Amino acid sequence: MYTYAHPGLKDPEYYVPGLPIDYVAQRYRISPDDIAKLGSAENPYGTSPMAKAAVGDALDKMYTYASWTAEPLREKLADTYGYEPDNFVCGAGETEIIAMILRAFAAMGERILMPGPCFPMYHLFAEAEGRIPDMAHEATDRTTMALDVDVYIDAIKPEHRIVFLTNPHSPSGTWMTEAEVRRVIEAAPHALVVLDEAYVHYSGGPGYIHLAHDYDNLAVLRTFSKVYGLAGLRLGFGVAHPDIIKALLAVKPTWNIGQLQIIGGVAALDDTAFVQKTIDTIIDSRTYVEGLFAETLDRFRFVPGSMSNFFLIEIMDPDIDSNQVFDGLLERGVIVKDGSISFRGLEKRFMRSDVNFREKMDQLVAALADLP
Amino acid sequence: MYTYAHPGLKDPEYYVPGLPIDYVAQRYRISPDDIAKLGSAENPYGTSPMAKAAVGDALDKMYTYASWTAEPLREKLADTYGYEPDNFVCGAGETEIIAMILRAFAAMGERILMPGPCFPMYHLFAEAEGRIPDMAHEATDRTTMALDVDVYIDAIKPEHRIVFLTNPHSPSGTWMTEAEVRRVIEAAPHALVVLDEAYVHYSGGPGYIHLAHDYDNLAVLRTFSKVYGLAGLRLGFGVAHPDIIKALLAVKPTWNIGQLQIIGGVAALDDTAFVQKTIDTIIDSRTYVEGLFAETLDRFRFVPGSMSNFFLIEIMDPDIDSNQVFDGLLERGVIVKDGSISFRGLEKRFMRSDVNFREKMDQLVAALADLP
Repeated sequence: MYTYAHPGLKDPEYYVPGLPIDYVAQRYRISPDDIAKLGSAENPYGTSPMAKAAVGDALDKMYTYASWTAEPLREKLADTYGYEPDNFVCGAGETEIIAMILRAFAAMGERILMPGPCFPMYHLFAEAEGRIPDMAHEATDRTTMALDVDVYIDAIKPEHRIVFLTNPHSPSGTWMTEAEVRRVIEAAPHALVVLDEAYVHYSGGPGYIHLAHDYDNLAVLRTFSKVYGLAGLRLGFGVAHPDIIKALLAVKPTWNIGQLQIIGGVAALDDTAFVQKTIDTIIDSRTYVEGLFAETLDRFRFVPGSMSNFFLIEIMDPDIDSNQVFDGLLERGVIVKDGSISFRGLEKRFMRSDVNFREKMDQLVAALADLP
Repeated sequence: MYTYAHPGLKDPEYYVPGLPIDYVAQRYRISPDDIAKLGSAENPYGTSPMAKAAVGDALDKMYTYASWTAEPLREKLADTYGYEPDNFVCGAGETEIIAMILRAFAAMGERILMPGPCFPMYHLFAEAEGRIPDMAHEATDRTTMALDVDVYIDAIKPEHRIVFLTNPHSPSGTWMTEAEVRRVIEAAPHALVVLDEAYVHYSGGPGYIHLAHDYDNLAVLRTFSKVYGLAGLRLGFGVAHPDIIKALLAVKPTWNIGQLQIIGGVAALDDTAFVQKTIDTIIDSRTYVEGLFAETLDRFRFVPGSMSNFFLIEIMDPDIDSNQVFDGLLERGVIVKDGSISFRGLEKRFMRSDVNFREKMDQLVAALADLP
């Protein structure tokens, strides 16, 4: 009989995605139109119209192999962000870039530092192939749920091959200053530092993609799943020194992305009107829902400081836990993330909800108020 | 400074794809319409019309995350091939499935058996992360370029974690009987045997996908890139015992494929008219070009026995080598594969050409006849 490369593969742990509308509609007999999907951080406006049009126009290219490095997209990214094409690697979502980085810069048995809690793919992908995630739970401030950069820097050890940072932070959505990010990078000169900026647009600013010019041990990651509305197309990228990119190209399946992803990505980068509309709506709704929580709810706390399109809800009522809240919201047609299921180390006191249109925020708050 | 997971990642070797038409048109100042692209084994008819229509109708889904296991496609595959959905894993081309299998069933430093020469991604992906490919060059019959199954079985050692088989074989296109394939599987009970059937449709028969019912150490791989004309969409799958699939799901990026791939794949499987038209054309042209070689060329030999949409050309003239033939053909608007560049161990005596429409075969033979 065959042998698994790592014993954990016999009974692996998988990422738990947010529930889809169809499943909830069927299970709870609710009309799909009445469901608020607030567990997947998708774009409320759908897909960038320019990206959609470009993909629709490219179907005649589906029979040919694309550039294996996604060269047209690398060139567009280089123009957009002020780099060279060989500073970029493209993947089937930012999640594929995370997997590539783990494979190229940490071998089986080697250690990786990440905040605790954090985006679960950091530790799930690490563990699947026998790498060891060190989750710095002590660096999470339990009031703001923000990352305490000083404590995180103390957790960096010489044996860490990779150090993850997420900005806006996950799952709190809180923000780190450029000086804080620089301090982490400079505290880990022996490691590759990964700055995951999946949700950076919702900060309202440009983020720190320029830092890859300054540090040759840094990779900055971005996704097309969020502000461009392309979660179902699968596209993300990393920017770093060409020596890092060369290694990432070697561990990716040769044609990891295809013609439609390349063409859709190039078009999306030009759709600044759609991007701005999305950002404006999210920022408006974020303020709105924080106000609603303060006015309406006493058993639930809006954890402040989110610069993302999601936020944490703390359950202040000691008589209910996140499993009960999750199920109660589903029955009321509202899908969020149960913190204890979706984030290792978050226990049963937190939910994570997307920011979406104001009416979806009303629906969330009404459902929370309605819980027994 | 960061450390590579494996020292080879500092200066990696990449797969060399067939050249695209645009590059050759520009470099050699030839009209794109006059170029015969015979180095990528793409479908001469383009994409399955049913797949193209389904993808075009699905653009409104691009903003949502797809099922991370590609469940609608797994269900369709199960119906089509007589398995359960949990017998399947889907990927961004068959090449991603190859990468998953290497990661899940061979750790760094472990050994993998494959024919020599073979599809290069077997050894390139293995080496990129420090696995050791053993290429059984001695098992290649130098007249037919077919795999000698007895010699290959002798090459199987207890330390081999994975044993690759390709049928039709690569790069010869030759065919193994079901009895031969079973003998290899049964000779490697300690390993995972991978039966790569990327080109199986061009054999004119159904192939051996049913064998995954009989062996729990077998994975059969297929692609949508060839007979369905979806090379640029990126889609392939593997069928195996659910215990194998469970491990493969853990090493894939969670959403490795998206909505358009799932929907396009489901539609393609129903497009039997397009599949049959493609198969009929390839089989007709394959016989035709073999006849042309026999009638027209004496410096080049059509290596007989291909059951695929490609074939090997042996250079019989000792005064020219494959680099010269490759360049000479490019100047004449014909793109093939230089065996010495595309296949490790093939040296400079072979080219690999696609089978395509009869007129493209005429163009290839005329260009070969025209070489100085």
